[in-house]
Amino acid sequence: LDYQHVQVPFEITLWIMLASLAKIGFHLYNKLPSVVPESCLLIFVGLIMGGIIYGLNDKSPPVMDSDIFFLYLLPPIVLDAGYFMPSRPFFENMGTILLYAVVGTIWNVFGIGFSLYGICQVKAFRLQDVSLLHNLLFGSLIAAVDPVAVLAVFEEIHVNEKLHILVFGESLLNDAVTVVLYKLFRSFCEMPTIKSVDVFAGVGKFFVVGLGGVLVGLTFGMTAAFTTRFTKDIRVIEPLFVFLYSYLSYLTAEMFHLSGIVAIIACAMGMKRYVEANISLKSHTTVKYFMKMWSSVSDTLIFIFLGVSTIGENHEWNWPYICFTVIFCLIWRALGVLVLTFFVNRFHVNTITSKDQFIIAYGGLRGAICFSLVFLLPDFHRKKLFIAATTVVILFTVFVQGMTIRPLVDLLAVKRKRESAPTVGEQIHIRFLDHLLAGIEDISGHWGQYYWKDKLEYFNSKYLQKILLREYDQPKSSIVLLYEKLERKHAIELAEAGQLGHAPSHPSLLRSHFLCSNNDRTVKIDKKLEDALNPDVLENIQEILARNLYRIRRTGPAYNRHTLPGETEPVEHAKEILILRHKSL
Amino acid sequence: LDYQHVQVPFEITLWIMLASLAKIGFHLYNKLPSVVPESCLLIFVGLIMGGIIYGLNDKSPPVMDSDIFFLYLLPPIVLDAGYFMPSRPFFENMGTILLYAVVGTIWNVFGIGFSLYGICQVKAFRLQDVSLLHNLLFGSLIAAVDPVAVLAVFEEIHVNEKLHILVFGESLLNDAVTVVLYKLFRSFCEMPTIKSVDVFAGVGKFFVVGLGGVLVGLTFGMTAAFTTRFTKDIRVIEPLFVFLYSYLSYLTAEMFHLSGIVAIIACAMGMKRYVEANISLKSHTTVKYFMKMWSSVSDTLIFIFLGVSTIGENHEWNWPYICFTVIFCLIWRALGVLVLTFFVNRFHVNTITSKDQFIIAYGGLRGAICFSLVFLLPDFHRKKLFIAATTVVILFTVFVQGMTIRPLVDLLAVKRKRESAPTVGEQIHIRFLDHLLAGIEDISGHWGQYYWKDKLEYFNSKYLQKILLREYDQPKSSIVLLYEKLERKHAIELAEAGQLGHAPSHPSLLRSHFLCSNNDRTVKIDKKLEDALNPDVLENIQEILARNLYRIRRTGPAYNRHTLPGETEPVEHAKEILILRHKSL
Repeated sequence: LDYQHVQVPFEITLWIMLASLAKIGFHLYNKLPSVVPESCLLIFVGLIMGGIIYGLNDKSPPVMDSDIFFLYLLPPIVLDAGYFMPSRPFFENMGTILLYAVVGTIWNVFGIGFSLYGICQVKAFRLQDVSLLHNLLFGSLIAAVDPVAVLAVFEEIHVNEKLHILVFGESLLNDAVTVVLYKLFRSFCEMPTIKSVDVFAGVGKFFVVGLGGVLVGLTFGMTAAFTTRFTKDIRVIEPLFVFLYSYLSYLTAEMFHLSGIVAIIACAMGMKRYVEANISLKSHTTVKYFMKMWSSVSDTLIFIFLGVSTIGENHEWNWPYICFTVIFCLIWRALGVLVLTFFVNRFHVNTITSKDQFIIAYGGLRGAICFSLVFLLPDFHRKKLFIAATTVVILFTVFVQGMTIRPLVDLLAVKRKRESAPTVGEQIHIRFLDHLLAGIEDISGHWGQYYWKDKLEYFNSKYLQKILLREYDQPKSSIVLLYEKLERKHAIELAEAGQLGHAPSHPSLLRSHFLCSNNDRTVKIDKKLEDALNPDVLENIQEILARNLYRIRRTGPAYNRHTLPGETEPVEHAKEILILRHKSL
Repeated sequence: LDYQHVQVPFEITLWIMLASLAKIGFHLYNKLPSVVPESCLLIFVGLIMGGIIYGLNDKSPPVMDSDIFFLYLLPPIVLDAGYFMPSRPFFENMGTILLYAVVGTIWNVFGIGFSLYGICQVKAFRLQDVSLLHNLLFGSLIAAVDPVAVLAVFEEIHVNEKLHILVFGESLLNDAVTVVLYKLFRSFCEMPTIKSVDVFAGVGKFFVVGLGGVLVGLTFGMTAAFTTRFTKDIRVIEPLFVFLYSYLSYLTAEMFHLSGIVAIIACAMGMKRYVEANISLKSHTTVKYFMKMWSSVSDTLIFIFLGVSTIGENHEWNWPYICFTVIFCLIWRALGVLVLTFFVNRFHVNTITSKDQFIIAYGGLRGAICFSLVFLLPDFHRKKLFIAATTVVILFTVFVQGMTIRPLVDLLAVKRKRESAPTVGEQIHIRFLDHLLAGIEDISGHWGQYYWKDKLEYFNSKYLQKILLREYDQPKSSIVLLYEKLERKHAIELAEAGQLGHAPSHPSLLRSHFLCSNNDRTVKIDKKLEDALNPDVLENIQEILARNLYRIRRTGPAYNRHTLPGETEPVEHAKEILILRHKSL
């Protein structure tokens, strides 16, 4: 027996296997995951595992290594989040998200830091040796909302898209702020004296870290898109580039002390549309599937490791400090959301309701990032107290808040996600309105989001597409692309249904007949939707719409990290279409 | 700048990126890969890289680590080979393959070892300090044909399926023999005296190592199949199990000093049919795609590293030893193939022609396995000579034999692979003949391959399927499954063609109409093909055939590691079928 030789890969494989089997186990009992979020179950599994290891070895189980977390477990989750990010709501709410992520996080850091320092002054608590700087350092790591924890809970409760993107976007973009503040306070802790220059340098760093991350990400994203122009003859390595370039962007950003999370999100969002146009359909399926799979496994491992790492002797228990940490985390977040939303609502027509505000404040879950950061702290005599407080805050937010948020959403009747994706008709109208608003903004001289979006689209079609797309000489109207995508998706669904023996009857035949007769028409609309007023493009679109009038096609369901787009239920208007179609023939 | 922190993943990612970009680079110039095999080009890139590193650092570039090779680079290639192994020719030629792999390899080891020992006795060559045992040890590592090198060359020259499987199967299965002989001689080298008991124990080990590998592989394969029964609710982690269990089988076998290659092949071949039936279509695409991608990258990295490792000061040059090694490798392999084929041909009707024999002997390429084994040798004063000789043999076989084999195949007019896959009609006839032969064997009391195959099929449908398949209560006839698979594939191709705007015209419409009208029929044939004489199954098949009479459907093209099944050319008999179909309606 030669275990030493294969130990490393063997143990990694076994951990992944354990995580995957745990996931299967939960889903065998359908009732459990509908009450308790999966993250809680996984932490629970981790706690049991940790207990077993502790019991057998009589020493603390190994703690989740911060390097493993930041270098191997976090990137797949963030990549998945960035790649499947619904870009429209994200950019529409960009200002609000940034406000929450930057100002909100700073508010929380200083709020929690100063008020904990206040607690430390109470003599009865015996905490006078914890300095203000240490409290601020602790505040900087405990303040940030965790994207992994937020995703795990929010994708199960299906709140409306705007609410989801506000919390989720904040949790992703606050990384830049957290990185800066954490490193700033950590270096302050080690400095003998702090000059005011250092403080200003720290403020300047926000922009460097955040914008630098975006720059690194976009550079790698564009390179990835450019590379996939040349993969026509070796389709099989296409998916690789998506993963390699995203990962490189993350590592490069980390190397230069920029925000890796921001970089990988910028990379994924930047490359997505070009890569998708360049690579084959099967490569695309593989990319999507593997991304989901990978992030799902990473996320499972993180929660299990969180549980395992909780067990052991790393903790110093101090009731007042720990309790007040939990309380201050809740209070400052609630206050921050209230104040910031007050300002946001003054500038927006579509305001954030008080119910939404409650869910935003309540959804501020902490997770593995805090946990890894607290272990990265330099050794000092109260580190174990900070570890204990962080662990309690994470367990409190994931268990108490994570388990009660679903009933609360039901109770408050928070606006839910619309069940069906927008129809083609709706999409056309949205596009048209965008275009109209861009025109209005242009005329009125107001450089709002529509103006910039329009300019970006122009730049994209004029320059970027020509460089990054393989078949740049035939730019297709995006509405035609959408139509083709839906057609293709439907054909595959149909074949699958046929294979499964589920769609045998007459309507299926009719629908497929209709589908087939559409397919034979080489739709050649060469301009973009922005040229919709061009008469012959309009005619083409009208024709497509007329033929599809009774068949409401749905685009893929909204973002969910653990599932891939599934099947849509059959629509029964096919007969009418067939009659229409026969008439037109 | 904090390079240290991200060094490991960053450098791994960069190497993979380099490999992928090199691949793209070659394919940009279509002429180059058609003359020079990709493996040669990659070694060449490696040589240049090695030269640059050597020039810049003024010390030998790092050598490919044997652990990295055996634990991370080899398994994906072998898994891919096992998973996509054409099982029919493999099992049909099992006896011949085993003869080549076991007896042939032993013949080569001792032939090369003893004759090199003879060379060492010539005083003029100054090699008298190389003992017989060391020569045999060297023979054991240089004798084995390398699956990676064989695959890289043979998949480009498209010889007939039998010839391909003979060389490729041998290169895979000789691993057990190589492992045993290499370890045996290495331990003999370190023993003071060798008893005859040790030699017999060594012979016994062959069976343990080989059959143990098969056993480990099948165990993990069946467990994988069983696990995928329960993944219905979380489709997204299905592909993971295929990879995890295969890798575990490899690691477990290595851990117990069994043959990892044999284990992973047994695992992949064992699980394939059950896993494919259990997992979703998209999971299946992902599995296939990722396997191809991974093995392709591994293989690229191996050849680049081979090139890099060649440069440096690891070599001791001794003209006679190195030249005679190359000559003996060629001679003993040629002799071995001639002698063994003589015996094989006496027992077979379908004999191996002398042209085929030449290609089998000439296709015995050496590769990275020898290279890794020679670096794993314990340190002794002539190790550098062995490294030099191994490097020369590898470069000679890959460059000289690899580059001339294609012209030789053309020159000798070796029988090529048939371009088209067998039609459904042919497949039905092959199946029917199998069944008939099994019956004849049964009656005549001869327990040949058909008898065993039939028994295995019976065991499979009676027990295994019920345990391992999710929907075991509806076993479908394999011909119906095939039919459905073709239908589905065609539907997807159609959709893709529609999306690409390539299949617009009338015939496409007709064909798709035909497809659609077939799809709506829930084909419910409940028995296996072996029951083909059952009248109502026969009727069903006749009906399917009648409707497909003019449309020759093709199954996917034959095995190729670097590409996935592509499109088949359209057939123009669709109109007739439509007319037939209309009549029948």
